Amino acid sequence: MSNNTSPALQVALAYHEAWKNRDHATAMKVVADNVVSETPFGPVEGGEALHKGESEFAHILKGATMVAAFGDETTALLMYYTHTIPVPSVLSSKYFKVENGKITEIKALFDKSQFPVQ
Amino acid sequence: MSNNTSPALQVALAYHEAWKNRDHATAMKVVADNVVSETPFGPVEGGEALHKGESEFAHILKGATMVAAFGDETTALLMYYTHTIPVPSVLSSKYFKVENGKITEIKALFDKSQFPVQ
Repeated sequence: MSNNTSPALQVALAYHEAWKNRDHATAMKVVADNVVSETPFGPVEGGEALHKGESEFAHILKGATMVAAFGDETTALLMYYTHTIPVPSVLSSKYFKVENGKITEIKALFDKSQFPVQ
Repeated sequence: MSNNTSPALQVALAYHEAWKNRDHATAMKVVADNVVSETPFGPVEGGEALHKGESEFAHILKGATMVAAFGDETTALLMYYTHTIPVPSVLSSKYFKVENGKITEIKALFDKSQFPVQ
């Protein structure tokens, strides 16, 4: 499922583990200040905005179950089920670009139509 | 971006290349008859149902641009932008399980709310 010789995957998994445990402050330790994220809700510019969004999401997050995790020198790709309070299991995928040990780019993907309209 | 020593990734890329060229009949050559797919529209059981769904989708498909592609002995994971007639670029991810050179499981993910309601 995973290739732990990939330095980018190690960073991505450190982020993912903290994220799924609703400890996004710890996840941010491996995120560059100028990280750029693509999300189902649009682009998110910078670490502060990412942390704000994920900290809000943490209120409905229950955990995650990994499907597949791969990486190479500078990139990593995960697929997993996200477990949330409104929807028990949401297939999700996240791509990470890692530079100098920090995440500089995230592409986050899930089908947001699975969530009830707010 | 990819590790071509992975036999599962080679099969997944053969599928993906044919799929993006709207030649799903060729893609089916590496798909097991009893393939099980998870899609944003629900589960799809069997190769025939998969081929029917993808052949219909081919009418709006224009192509795809790879973001990342990884694999190991039996699984592969892709992320790419799907280019369609109604929506120019849709972030997409697909997981493949490969057994004896054939795809036996697909988990296909995109945000279907990006498409206009039919």
